Amino acid sequence: MVVMAKYAKGANAERELIEMFSNKGYAAMRAAGSGVSRFPSADVIASNGKKTFAIESKAIKSGYVYLERDKIVKLLEFSQKFGARPYVAVKIKKDDWTFLPAGKIIATESGNFSITKKSAKENGILFENLISET
Amino acid sequence: MVVMAKYAKGANAERELIEMFSNKGYAAMRAAGSGVSRFPSADVIASNGKKTFAIESKAIKSGYVYLERDKIVKLLEFSQKFGARPYVAVKIKKDDWTFLPAGKIIATESGNFSITKKSAKENGILFENLISET
Repeated sequence: MVVMAKYAKGANAERELIEMFSNKGYAAMRAAGSGVSRFPSADVIASNGKKTFAIESKAIKSGYVYLERDKIVKLLEFSQKFGARPYVAVKIKKDDWTFLPAGKIIATESGNFSITKKSAKENGILFENLISET
Repeated sequence: MVVMAKYAKGANAERELIEMFSNKGYAAMRAAGSGVSRFPSADVIASNGKKTFAIESKAIKSGYVYLERDKIVKLLEFSQKFGARPYVAVKIKKDDWTFLPAGKIIATESGNFSITKKSAKENGILFENLISET
């Protein structure tokens, strides 16, 4: 039950991103079975034929976002092959989605990644700015 | 049970395509909840940064492949926005996968689409030829 609840929440967050991109004329897709594949992967991929974004997304109710090292490695590998811009999309509480370039997220001593509300605000950009990127 | 079995089979066919593309240096992704989204969609998306393919896939044990009109419309719409080449990938029995350009599949009188083993052979190309396309 806990697993299902967690999955449903993640899927809803991804659907929110799909809707945001779709409203801006992008085609966007959620990945099946995210994270269980042995191949490079992302949670969401979106493109308008000119710009392509590969996104790992996390929506949480409180605290900070924790990301396993392997997730970031797979996202970077996927993006490099696909020709996409790798981002981690973070939504903490009711704040707007913030997008952080995946290559710039700093690892903790354990080798994994954490993003606090403060670091998301300092290093991330909002959706409008993301899609205005050249 | 019938639904689950059908889903599992479709997912396995898609995983086979992911593996084929991955082995050729592509990044590839299976879509979550294929067909249930109100947005344009494809079963599989694959790119090597130069060429991008959006694929609707069907593997069947016998007979012919049946595709609802809506699936093709969503695939064409997705591909146009995403900047991908739209294909229907068909595997009948133990034959190799055959790839048909989605825009060239002829609708039946009902408005839906059917692909026989014969028409797949006549109008489709094999994987090696697909990724050799310029």
